[in-house]
Formats: sequence, C-alpha cells, structure tokens
Amino acid sequence: MSFDLVIHDGLLVTSSDTFKADLGINAGKIAAIGHKLSGKKTIDASGLYVLPGAVDPHVHLEMPVGKTRSSDDWFTGTLAAAYGGTTTVIDFVEALPQQSLVEALIDRKSLAENRAVIDYAFHMTLADAKEYTLEEIPAVINAGVTSFKTYTTYEGFRLSDSEFLRILKAVSTYNGLVIVHAENDSIIKHFTQELIDSGNMAPRFHPLSRPAIAEGEAIGRILSLAEAVDAPIYIVHISSAIGAKELANAQIQRKNVLGETCVQYLLLTEAEYQQPGFEAAKYVCQPPLRKSGDCAALWKALGDGSILTIGTDHCPFNFVGQKDLGSERFTDIPGGLPGIESRLSLVYSSGVAKGLISLNQWVSLCCTNPAVIFGLHPQKGSLLPGADADIVIFDPTLKKTISHNMLHENVDYTPYEGYELQGYPVKTLLRGEVIINNGKAIDIKGKGKYLKCGPPQVNLQPLP
Amino acid sequence: MSFDLVIHDGLLVTSSDTFKADLGINAGKIAAIGHKLSGKKTIDASGLYVLPGAVDPHVHLEMPVGKTRSSDDWFTGTLAAAYGGTTTVIDFVEALPQQSLVEALIDRKSLAENRAVIDYAFHMTLADAKEYTLEEIPAVINAGVTSFKTYTTYEGFRLSDSEFLRILKAVSTYNGLVIVHAENDSIIKHFTQELIDSGNMAPRFHPLSRPAIAEGEAIGRILSLAEAVDAPIYIVHISSAIGAKELANAQIQRKNVLGETCVQYLLLTEAEYQQPGFEAAKYVCQPPLRKSGDCAALWKALGDGSILTIGTDHCPFNFVGQKDLGSERFTDIPGGLPGIESRLSLVYSSGVAKGLISLNQWVSLCCTNPAVIFGLHPQKGSLLPGADADIVIFDPTLKKTISHNMLHENVDYTPYEGYELQGYPVKTLLRGEVIINNGKAIDIKGKGKYLKCGPPQVNLQPLP
Amino acid sequence: MSFDLVIHDGLLVTSSDTFKADLGINAGKIAAIGHKLSGKKTIDASGLYVLPGAVDPHVHLEMPVGKTRSSDDWFTGTLAAAYGGTTTVIDFVEALPQQSLVEALIDRKSLAENRAVIDYAFHMTLADAKEYTLEEIPAVINAGVTSFKTYTTYEGFRLSDSEFLRILKAVSTYNGLVIVHAENDSIIKHFTQELIDSGNMAPRFHPLSRPAIAEGEAIGRILSLAEAVDAPIYIVHISSAIGAKELANAQIQRKNVLGETCVQYLLLTEAEYQQPGFEAAKYVCQPPLRKSGDCAALWKALGDGSILTIGTDHCPFNFVGQKDLGSERFTDIPGGLPGIESRLSLVYSSGVAKGLISLNQWVSLCCTNPAVIFGLHPQKGSLLPGADADIVIFDPTLKKTISHNMLHENVDYTPYEGYELQGYPVKTLLRGEVIINNGKAIDIKGKGKYLKCGPPQVNLQPLP
Amino acid sequence: MSFDLVIHDGLLVTSSDTFKADLGINAGKIAAIGHKLSGKKTIDASGLYVLPGAVDPHVHLEMPVGKTRSSDDWFTGTLAAAYGGTTTVIDFVEALPQQSLVEALIDRKSLAENRAVIDYAFHMTLADAKEYTLEEIPAVINAGVTSFKTYTTYEGFRLSDSEFLRILKAVSTYNGLVIVHAENDSIIKHFTQELIDSGNMAPRFHPLSRPAIAEGEAIGRILSLAEAVDAPIYIVHISSAIGAKELANAQIQRKNVLGETCVQYLLLTEAEYQQPGFEAAKYVCQPPLRKSGDCAALWKALGDGSILTIGTDHCPFNFVGQKDLGSERFTDIPGGLPGIESRLSLVYSSGVAKGLISLNQWVSLCCTNPAVIFGLHPQKGSLLPGADADIVIFDPTLKKTISHNMLHENVDYTPYEGYELQGYPVKTLLRGEVIINNGKAIDIKGKGKYLKCGPPQVNLQPLP
Repeated sequence: MSFDLVIHDGLLVTSSDTFKADLGINAGKIAAIGHKLSGKKTIDASGLYVLPGAVDPHVHLEMPVGKTRSSDDWFTGTLAAAYGGTTTVIDFVEALPQQSLVEALIDRKSLAENRAVIDYAFHMTLADAKEYTLEEIPAVINAGVTSFKTYTTYEGFRLSDSEFLRILKAVSTYNGLVIVHAENDSIIKHFTQELIDSGNMAPRFHPLSRPAIAEGEAIGRILSLAEAVDAPIYIVHISSAIGAKELANAQIQRKNVLGETCVQYLLLTEAEYQQPGFEAAKYVCQPPLRKSGDCAALWKALGDGSILTIGTDHCPFNFVGQKDLGSERFTDIPGGLPGIESRLSLVYSSGVAKGLISLNQWVSLCCTNPAVIFGLHPQKGSLLPGADADIVIFDPTLKKTISHNMLHENVDYTPYEGYELQGYPVKTLLRGEVIINNGKAIDIKGKGKYLKCGPPQVNLQPLP
Repeated sequence: MSFDLVIHDGLLVTSSDTFKADLGINAGKIAAIGHKLSGKKTIDASGLYVLPGAVDPHVHLEMPVGKTRSSDDWFTGTLAAAYGGTTTVIDFVEALPQQSLVEALIDRKSLAENRAVIDYAFHMTLADAKEYTLEEIPAVINAGVTSFKTYTTYEGFRLSDSEFLRILKAVSTYNGLVIVHAENDSIIKHFTQELIDSGNMAPRFHPLSRPAIAEGEAIGRILSLAEAVDAPIYIVHISSAIGAKELANAQIQRKNVLGETCVQYLLLTEAEYQQPGFEAAKYVCQPPLRKSGDCAALWKALGDGSILTIGTDHCPFNFVGQKDLGSERFTDIPGGLPGIESRLSLVYSSGVAKGLISLNQWVSLCCTNPAVIFGLHPQKGSLLPGADADIVIFDPTLKKTISHNMLHENVDYTPYEGYELQGYPVKTLLRGEVIINNGKAIDIKGKGKYLKCGPPQVNLQPLP
Repeated sequence: MSFDLVIHDGLLVTSSDTFKADLGINAGKIAAIGHKLSGKKTIDASGLYVLPGAVDPHVHLEMPVGKTRSSDDWFTGTLAAAYGGTTTVIDFVEALPQQSLVEALIDRKSLAENRAVIDYAFHMTLADAKEYTLEEIPAVINAGVTSFKTYTTYEGFRLSDSEFLRILKAVSTYNGLVIVHAENDSIIKHFTQELIDSGNMAPRFHPLSRPAIAEGEAIGRILSLAEAVDAPIYIVHISSAIGAKELANAQIQRKNVLGETCVQYLLLTEAEYQQPGFEAAKYVCQPPLRKSGDCAALWKALGDGSILTIGTDHCPFNFVGQKDLGSERFTDIPGGLPGIESRLSLVYSSGVAKGLISLNQWVSLCCTNPAVIFGLHPQKGSLLPGADADIVIFDPTLKKTISHNMLHENVDYTPYEGYELQGYPVKTLLRGEVIINNGKAIDIKGKGKYLKCGPPQVNLQPLP
Repeated sequence: MSFDLVIHDGLLVTSSDTFKADLGINAGKIAAIGHKLSGKKTIDASGLYVLPGAVDPHVHLEMPVGKTRSSDDWFTGTLAAAYGGTTTVIDFVEALPQQSLVEALIDRKSLAENRAVIDYAFHMTLADAKEYTLEEIPAVINAGVTSFKTYTTYEGFRLSDSEFLRILKAVSTYNGLVIVHAENDSIIKHFTQELIDSGNMAPRFHPLSRPAIAEGEAIGRILSLAEAVDAPIYIVHISSAIGAKELANAQIQRKNVLGETCVQYLLLTEAEYQQPGFEAAKYVCQPPLRKSGDCAALWKALGDGSILTIGTDHCPFNFVGQKDLGSERFTDIPGGLPGIESRLSLVYSSGVAKGLISLNQWVSLCCTNPAVIFGLHPQKGSLLPGADADIVIFDPTLKKTISHNMLHENVDYTPYEGYELQGYPVKTLLRGEVIINNGKAIDIKGKGKYLKCGPPQVNLQPLP
C-alpha cells in the first residue's frame, strides 16, 4: 500500500492536537495519518508544522463599490491568499436590483471560474425581505450558498427590524445562517452629519463618525431579534470590546450565537488615523479601527472561545487612484483594507508566539472553525482521512518583515508595513498538489473550484 | 412662636430617616420639625407614620385612546389618588396633529383646573422630531414641563433611532429629561401577526404578542442611543427581569440612567391571562404582565436601588363598555389598568411588611424620588422646612381587603380584588389642609394647583 | 419659644438631604429644624455647610504596641479630632491576659475619663474563643460595647476558623456585631520569611510581605464563615480592589455584610515605599498601601454603596524614637499612620470636590453610617430633633495645604504633608457648645463622655 | 502494508472530531487512521463509536479507611472498570506514618501488579509538609507520580494554610500538580457537633454536617493560596454550584486552575438522604450529594469548559457489614460510593443524549482530559498515531437499565439502581487486545501495567 504522496515527519497541528505523524494522500484526498507511511512522492516536513489549508470566511474580490471596485481580482486575490497559506475563500454575492439571487450567484461564479487559484464559496447578500426574495432562499441553498449576509447600515442594504425578523425566520426555516454587519445606522448618520456640518472632512475624522457604541447597539439589537425568533446568528468583523461583550452575554443565555473578528481589529488601532496628510485614508474601513483596549478584549474573546473565527474582510483599494476619491471628504473614501495574504502568519506571530492563543486555537480560528460554521467541514479545515488534501507546511522559525514589495496583493500599500513576522508558510497544497513552494507559484491558473456549502454548523461548544 | 398646625408625636418617615418628632406647619408650608412645638390646631399622630404626600409619576386621566378615553376624569381620578395618600400626580400632554406643544399644554391644564383635588404636573409627549417640534422645547420647559415622553412603538408615536437621537440631543441641551416607553415595535408586530394569522384573538393571547425580549431589546437600544449622545434617560414601566438587567448594566457604565416600574408589574403575573372567558381583558396593558420571576427581579432592583420609582400607569377602562371593544380581537382592547388609589398601601403591604424593601425605601420610591427626578423637590416629596405641607398620616396597623366597592376610582373593577392590605392612610393633607380624614373627603373641589417642574435631577446615587 | 442657640441660614447637609434651614438647640440637643427660629444665642452660618459632628469608627489612642504605645493620648488625640470636625471616636479595648473583658473596659474608660475632649465609645477585642470569654459577652454588651474586634493575623490575636465560628455564633446570639481585621496570616508569614531569608529588611519591602491576595483570601474566608452561621459581619480597613470585590460579591448573596475603608487607602499608594532612606517607615501600616487601581476601586465601592464607612485607623508613632525601632528590620516597625484630624476635609477635598462621591455620601460615610452601624444613631451622626447637638460648620471655600505644623496630632510627621485641601471646618460644637472656633479650642478639657452603644444596625440598604 | 488489527468503518470520536475512518493497530499501538486499511485481523465497527479508552482520574481500590477497606480490590475494581470502557485508572498512594513516600509507592504498586486488569497510575497523598516529606518530591516524580493529593479536612490529613503554601511551592518547583479535597474543616466540625449535641445521628443528617458553603470557602481559600505563590491547582470532586463558581471566577484571573466533578454530583441529589431506615447510608460520601440546582450548575460548568474532568471517586463499601459501622452515628459510616463501571455510559446517557454536553466533550471529560492533565497524553486518551491502542467500541443504540446484578463491582448495591442507560460499550481493547467482548472478559488477569506520569499539562484552553 503506497500513497500518491506522503508528507513525512511533520508536526501535525489541528484544532485540537499537535503530534508527529506522516500524512498520506491519494487522489487529492487525505488517505491516512500514521507512522512509517510510504509514498510514490514524498515531502520531508521534519521541523515544520503541517496544518489544514486556511479558510478565509470574509473576502471581497473585485467587488463593486460606487464607481470603483476592489483592486484584487479573482486571480490576483486568490493567488495572494495561496502565498499566505489560504486554500479556501468565502466571498459574497450581491444581486443587482431586479436580478434574481440565483442568477447573481451564477454571474459571480462565472467571474471566478478558471481564474481562481484556490477553492471558493459564497455568502448571499440579502438587501431586502421582499416575498420574492425570500422565496428564492431554498434555491440558493440548493445551489450551495447557505449563509446570508445582511446589513444594519448602508443605503440600499440597511434592513429594518421587521425585515430582519422575516429574514431570520425564513433563513432558519431552511437551516441557513444569517450573518450580519452590525453598526447602528442612525448613530453613524448623526455623527457624520455633525462632522460634516463642522467642516471636519479629513480622513482622521472617520472613526468619530462610527463610535463603538454604534456597533454595541447594533449587535445587541440583532442578538435580541435572533433570540425572539430563536434563530442562529453570526456577527461579522466584531471590532470593539463592547461588541465582544454583547456577544458573550448572549452566549450565556443561549446557543447558536457566533462571532468573527478580523486581523486588523486585533492589530491596528485608531492611532493610525493620526498619521499626517491623507495617510489616514489607508486605514478607512467599516467598522473603523478602535483603541488598544478593544484589541485586548478581542484577543481575550478569542482565547476564551466566545469569538470563533478570524477573517480579513479583504477589500483593497489603491491609495492612489481609489482611496483618493475621498480626498475632499472622508465619506467618499472607498472603505476596506487589504490583508488576504498575511492572515495566517500575522495571527501566529501576534497571537501564538506571544502566548495570547494556543497553537491549536490558531488552527481553529483560521482554518477549522470557518469551515465548520459554513458547512465545508470536514472536506475543508481538517486533516481527517477523506478530507481534501489542502495543506499548509509552515516553518515556525522563519522570520520576515512585512513590506508591500514582498506581498502579491494587487494594491499599492499594506497597512502592516514593517510588521515583524515569526513563522511563515513554506508550501501550500491544494487538493494534494503543491501550488506554492518556498515562495514560488507552480502551475496554478484556474485550479480553484466552486464549493457547495452544506448546512452551517452553529452549535460549536468550548472544548479543552 | 405658635404654628398654624402641629402634628404631634408621629413617627416621621422620610427617604432616609425614621424618627419621632412634631411637625409644625405655617401658611401651608412645613415650618419646623422639632420637639414640643405648639400649634393653634393640632393633630395627634402618636402610633402613626407621618410621611410626605405621595407623588405618582405616571398617570393618564381622561386620556383619549382611539374612540374612547380613560374612565377617570381629573376630579374622580385625583380624588381616588387623595384617598390613597397621593398628593401630586404627573400626567401627560399629547398635542393633536398640527397643534403646538404649548397650546396642547394649555388645553390639558385647563381640563384639570378647578377640577383636580390634588396638585399636578405634566410630561410632554413628543411624537416626532421635526424641527418646529424641537424648537418648542425651551418654551415648554419655560412653561413648567421638563420631561418629554417618547415611544418606540405605537403608530403615530413610534420614533426612529434618528428621531430619538435628535430628541435626546435637543432635550438634554435644555437640561430636560427624555422618558421612554420601550418595547420593540417589529417584534410586537411579528408576533401579533402570527397570532392573528392563526386565529388566536382572545385576550389570553395578548402577552404572547409582546414578549419580554421586545422590552429588553428596546431598553438596550434606547440606553445605547442615550449613551452615544451622553444624555440622561428614564425608562418608564419596566416590567421584566431582562429590562431591569439592561438598566443595571448601563448604570455600571455611566450615571443618569433611571428607571421606573409600576405596581402591577410587582404584584400581578401573566397567570391572570388564564382566567376564563373575557376576564383576561381586565389585565391587558402594555407592556403585559410577566412571570413571577420577573416580579422578583423587579423587587430586587428596587431593593438595590437600580430602579428608583414606582408609578401606576393608571389608565382605567370599564370592563363593560370599554374593554369589550376588543371582544373580537385582543388588539382592540384599550390597554391599561386602574391603580391610582392603592399604590402607597399595596407597596407597603407587599414590600415593606414582607421585608423586600425598607420603610425608608417605600417613601423614596413612592414620594421622594418621583419629586426629585422630575424637578418638584424639595417642594414635594420631602418633610424639609419650606416644603409644601403635603402629608400622609398612615396607620401601619390598619388591615383592609381591597374590593372594588371600597375604592373611589371611576371604573367597574379592580385588578387587586381581594388583596390583603396591611397599613392604610388615615389622613391626607394638601398644603397644610386635611383633605381626606379617616376615609371622608373634606372640602376638596378644585384645590389642586398646577406645578411647574424645575430641571430634572438625574444624578441620584445610592446612599445607605 | 426661644432656643438656647440657633444656627441661622446654613446649608444643612445630612446623609440624604441638602437644604437651607435654621437649627435650634436646647439643653445640648437639637430641638428643631425650621425657618425663622429665634435663639438666645445665634451663629450665622450663611454660605456654610452645617453637618452632624463626624464619627471616626476606628482609632487607637495611647495603644500599647510591643514596648511602645501610639503617641496620641486621650487628650491630644481627641483634641486633634475636634479640630478636624470629629465629635465622636470609637476606640478599642484589649484585655490583658487573665483580665476579664469588663474589667478591661473599666480600665480603658478610666484612661479617657476627664481627658477626652469629645465623646467616645469602644469596640471590644476578642483574642480567643474560650468559654469564659464568650460568657462575658452579655455583660460587655450591657456595659455599652456591642461590637467585637477580631483578627485573622498577629500572634496572640489570630483566631482559627473554629474560634471564629464560635465567636460569630455567640456575638450574634446577643445581637452584637463581629468586626474583623482580615489578612491571611500564613501568606504573610510565607512572604515575610522569604524576604528575611534573602536579607530584604528595609521598610520598602514591607508591602511585599502582605500582598493584596492575603487580604482577598481572608475577607473571602470570613464572609463564608459568617454566611455559614448566618451572622452579620463588618470588615475593617479594606485596602484592595480584590477585598472590595469579595465584599460586593457577598452582598449579592445576603444582607448584613458591611465594610469600612480608611483615608490612607483612598489617597496613598505603595509608591510611598519607594521614598529614599528610612522614609518608607512613615507609611508602614497593616494592611499596607496598595496600587492606584486599588484606590480607584475603593472610591467606586464608596460611590456604589458597597463600602459604607471611612475611618482613619489612627495609630500614630513618631518617626524618630518609635518608627526607628524597626531600623534593622521592617517587621519591627510599629505599624500605623496618623490621620484623625484631617479625615473630614481630606474626604471632602478628594471625594466630593472631585465628583467621586456626593455631598450627602460624604456625610453618610464620615458621620452617619458609623453612628448607625455601631448603635449610636440617631443620638450621633444625625441632625434630627432629639439628637445630640454635635455640629460641624464647614466652609467649602476655605483652602489649606496640609503641613505637620498646622496639625494638632501628637506625632512628628504627617503622611499627607503638602496635600491641598478644599474646604475645612470653621466651628465644632459638642452637645450644643462650641469647642473649636476658627482654629481656636475653647474650654475643652475633659468634656467628652463615654457613650454606651446600642444594638448595631447592620441592615443598611442603598437609597437614592 | 498490513496491520496487526484494523477496526473498520467505525465512527471515530475524539475530544475534537467525529469522523468515519479505519483504525490500524500494530504492536499494541495505533499505527494509522485512514481509509481502506487492511489488517491481519479485523473488527467491523460499522454503526458504532470508536473512542479512546476511558481514563478515571479518581478511584480508591482496596483503600484502608479506619478498621475496614474499600470493597473492590485491584482485580475486581479494574475488571469492573474494563467492563464499562475504562482502560486506565489513577488511584492514590498514602504513606503510613514514618514510611517514606517512595516506599509507600512501591508497596502500593506491588498490590496492583499482576492483579490489575487495566493500566494504572497514582497520585501521591501528602499529609504533612515536613522537610523530609517535601524532600522526597523529586524522587516521587522521578518514579512516575507527578500529582500530589492534599486535604483541607480529616484528622491526620488536614493541612494548615502554611503547610499548603510550602507544598504548593515545593511541588510546583518540580512541575508537579497539587490536587485538593476542599471542604472547610471547622464548618464541618461546627455543624457535626451541633447535630450530635442535639441527638441527630441518623445518616439523613450527614448532608447538614457539610454544607455547600464549607466547600465554597475551602475552594476559595485554596485558589487564593495557589494564586499567592502562582502555582497550578486542581480541585477534585467539586459538588456544588458555589464551588463551581469559585473555580470559574479564579479562571478569569489566571490560568492553571483546574477542576473535576464526579458522576454522583451530576446525577444524584440530597433527596436520596430522605430514604427510609438506614438506606441513606448508601449515599454517604464526602462532600455529600447536593440540590438539583447544584447538578445543573455542574453540567453547565462542563458545558462551558470550566470543569474539565469527570471522575468517580469510586470507593465502595458494602451496605451490610461496612456502611453499618455507622448505624449508631452517621459520622462512623465509611464514606464513599461505587461507580467505576458505569461512568462512561452514565455520562453519555445523561449528558450527551440529553444535549447537555456534546459527543466530543464526553470523550474530553472521560478520556482525554484526565490523560492530558496527569501527563499520560498522548499515550492514553487519544486516537493519535503512536498512542496505546486502548479503544472502546461503544454502541449508542444499546439500551440497558442499571441493576446491581448486571455490574461487576464487588459491593452489595449500586446507587444508580434502575437508571436507564442509552448506549453501552461492546468491546474494550487494552494495548491492541480485546479484553472485554460483548460483556465477556477475555484472558484478562494481570494484564494491567503501571504508568509513569509525565509532567502535568495544566494549560488547557477552551477550543470550539
């Protein structure tokens, strides 16, 4: 019995265990984990970590925003992801006005097809709760999209409480999962108007327009609406201590209450907005960066299991030519940061290496939990026999300093410029094939496949 | 030095102290508290409690609701109040569409004038946040109304988050206080529609249409909005454990967060809705009665000082001829309970006599705090020299059983029928004159005066 | 009707109210509070606060400690207290080995008699739980001492859990109150031994020998023992955030759980121990000074009503000739700080003037609550008719800087040297007679009387 | 490549995952997990759960207690364990007075040798903190015992705070782990004496002699002492809500705070003590059974990860001939319950099948965590390649009713008589060999081996 490929002698790291073993791969699948496995091809991973390919639950590739679109397309964005050890991304479908949800999904898939370097799945955005919209939910789920993105803010997307209740009810009837961008729209408008009225239009005023209480209120409200109709719920990109606390309080009351944060909210703070000139625009995102106490609260929430995933909300815009659309007024700056490439290494460096989370939590947060929650597990995010052989081989001793030059994201800056990294991927395997080898991409074009998500798994419980 | 009237040898009970003393009255005011005072007239209060006249912060007299109006008018309602030891009520002004707030206040005052038996003040209802409405706020405050009632529910009254923010900002600019009826409108509509769609129209379904989470969500939201603009806030008629908890959590964060409950939420439960036939309609009010655990949580909140006032939300409708407007459908039942007459005795009997609150807390909750918060203190709610000589002489040994017959409220039932009382007022004095003496009204007609409220005092702190 | 003395036009400040009134005094008692009172003598207090004489619940005058005794005797100590507005102190009786408790009380009283300038009462120290000791409790209570001091540390005083249980049971049977110095003896010994073994004998090592967890553990334990036998309990000189938290947690579970802090724990920190040379010895006390976060937690506990009294634990030792007994080894430094004179003004300046507590809380914490808890109210700590006319007239506009020179304490330093004061007493009255007038003592010698304490009042509840 | 044995098609259940795979065994070790493995021998596990052999962290076999010893010896007790799916037990060594710890270990091991059916390890009891005792710690650790049992109660075992501090310091210096039976000795003596003095000697009075507050106090104290010297700590057999809360509060402050509960505290309540006659004696154990609210709190603590292990504290005494030693007085009843055989199935039936814990938590609590914490992982408690092939094959559809007759424990009753079980082990494998097959023991005698424990792993973190 000889495997197509055996990765020898690595330290396998999963969401629960760390152990030395060989990993045998057949036909693109993990076939066995054991000792002394023999393979037609072999990789020596001694001294290295072997982990499931990372899953980014929150990216926006070539996403239309006003007159522009995010600068990474399906090829450049997924290639950057692969370089960083990410083998699956979950992006978003937004139907045009009048367009059916399923049509929009088909359009969005066709953009990715033959261009994506890694596998991909989708969340479906619901911008209204009209009957014909809700009637499409079973068809959307059938087509492989089982999570539904909603907003409490933004013109054209903001849902009323009544719309939320209808959506929560409809989606949970079909065992789908509602995911929410939660910021109180009226508070934002109130402070935005105050700033504009007083002529404070520079990008450094952006965070004042969206205070943490706006997030706290909206998370509290959404959790109450979900509780009222007993539906599961997932809050995206939690950025503040108050947001994390609302989540944790709700988890004491009931199950099926899930939350995500993003790398930028763990590492960057509102101090960035004090940079001179227009530099602050590089950090304009929604919700905005917060205080260092918020970062600490989010790390704590990761450590105690109340927040279960780390995404990137990767949504890059060039500083020159895109961010400067808002040079007159911060509200016109396209909002979003790049980050798809460095997530795995940044979380290892700032979390594991500093003792804030464990090695296994790192894998949970970046690889396993996103797959479990969005119905891609055990195919993705695991090293179990039968899983896709998406593998990252990670060298924990490798040191790098992030610079825009070393990254492959299609954008003219990185908000992490100068960050010291401890540990970096040396090989990325997609379904049994090495696609990135020591910083070189290999025969990658269009290898990525569309993934149909199964029913979301929302009942994750803390386990030691 | 001889006083107009001296009350001898009573046990004076204030919000902080209990002590034996004489109370000297001159020209309708408390002139001295001391020993061996001599008066032209005297009252022997030995063995009795002497307390400040009670202040009911939440009543609705002859209030228009749909095609009908609450059954107690300014004469019958205030007389019933006086019988029970209440010497000041705070009612509401609701402007008609197109009517100015100040005009509405003048109209409402004129209804009370020469009819009210006791003194009265008003809250001003704000049903919108239009510029011309907000511009009237200083004039309203100048006219003596410094608290502004708002709603998160009810057609014609429900305010959006943006409207709330504008109102909070405008009212607090002038040192007024926003008070809120907080229930989530969409949750109520959602469940109401479900009940109606399934043919569940009997009054026993009323509580299912307004679950506690609807109150919890709305209180949480309002407290967040108030925090966002750093405005004081007062939540009326808190009915649930979750509502009380939201309030207490906010009080940990900041000051100026105040709450009220009402007698019915302390004593009655949703079990009443299981009464046969149409009886349940007698208990239809908004928010509805809750579980006994909610009652316990509210008593605890009174005991630990997180809820500061007990009102009645007195809004009586006759069972025959008014409540039966909703015989076909619970949503058509005019909502509200009578209670203006028995508050002081019910709270003493169920709270003090059972050890849930102290004697001094009873006076705080029913007399002093409502006066302090709404800017009527020390004129009302205190026994300090210079205060109006509104006095209740209360016999703690008197036992009564509540029956509809013994009450003076103008309504054909009482929800407290059969309740055992321990302690009852034996004399009520308004500005130095006895108006109720051992159950007899004396020369009362139209003695009540309009009270101009001063700036609300929102910074009450716990004191042992 | 003309009073012996009337204080005109002051702003009366009690634990609950602030109001303008005249205060009439007859035969050393408060006879009336009212308007336009006329007196044979008068004091004009316009623009000044008129409050009940302050009560210091925790002082040690001429207290034997090893080979020395605290440097203030009954005359100097009580005179200093009077200068600062304190009109009652509660000191301690410690029986000698073999001596009966009642005899010890008689001896201690005789020391104070004819020397104390202000009134005084006592706590009785229990250093064992032997049968013949406990049998004396009723006699001690009968003699006017109703609170019993115990220790979890110190040779000759430390009680075992079993002894505590017996004492709690015996004292509560007779409605007395056990008060406790709570620090874990074994933790202190452990760290003390470590410091000595490593040659760290300078006074700056003192705080390391008694960490906050030692206080936290002991408070937690004592509260559990008291809960086991359902006895009331009062923890003296709480110094740490963890201690305050243990107290607050127990108060959620049950009533009759009381706590005290002292001025030094509110204002001074362990930073003082870093002073050069032997200066740190000036700050050696048990428990030691803590971190600034502990100060903040204690102010918060005062603000929210979980800690109810502020004492001084006044126990002065001269820097030269007494503190230097420990020049070789910090464990030989007699422990204790002076503070009896400036408490009222320091708490006003650092608490009220900075918005940490209210004006009325200041009076509660320094005057009313100590009297209530230890059974001296309403005779002491109140402005009610019938109370002793112990009065402080306090000028809130007076500014002073504390220096050793301006104080009357009999000790060669003050730990508050250089502290800026806002507000100071201008007159102190004891039972109707002015004993301090604008910094001048008047005919004071031996005016103080022994006070028999009534049953402790342990059921204080928060009231707004 | 063919394995010695392959278990085909089972559903593998680990502390983190549930997945279908084959499990290949070579030379008594797990050699591979994969698909389509081929073996010389095979077991068909389709439709069955395949989990790591269970580890019971708390048993007392043939343990001397007063004049008697627990009724299961090393053969009968470990055989009963094997029937129930337990393949490792951790028992206790108690040195005789004067005996060295290492000698006592050798004696205790020799008792088990050639008689134990399954593998075994030990905790070392420390009954004093004398220098020569603490000096033996490195030798004990070297001999394979790395956890040290201590007591806050029982004559001859009870340690003072000082002794605890010395032990905590000494044990943690060598990376050992102190485990504690925590009940306040003085509270127990106090209530025991009261009961005896009042003639209440029947077994139903047992629980009154050891109230929950006695456990709460002792846990709080031990956690504080451990915090003072920053040592890891493990509390055994937590029985009460208050105990669980003390643990959880300490876990907020710092890591390395671990707790265990036992099956009896999850399932049985003090209601058992109301059984007629002497029946209550069957349930006498220390700590005693509590209220149903305590059971609920313990399940919650398992669910949220604050309690990490479930043991049995198996310490059986025959109702006739042993328990009746206490027929005159409950304090003479040998304390302890049987339970070694049914733990795995009881926890599955009452926990997993009722939705209180997840399938993976069941494996964590009963198999993996005890092995991890006591330094036996990954050799025990895991299905990782290289681990001992200790395997339980569990049929989740099998239903049984517990009766004394079906059990193999050497004792004349079971406290779980009549309990309905859902799911039961059908095969138990020890190091690759089937020792129990469908209720039949196979060639078992003396197969058990002594396990040397490695360093305890105390830093378990919650993982989803």
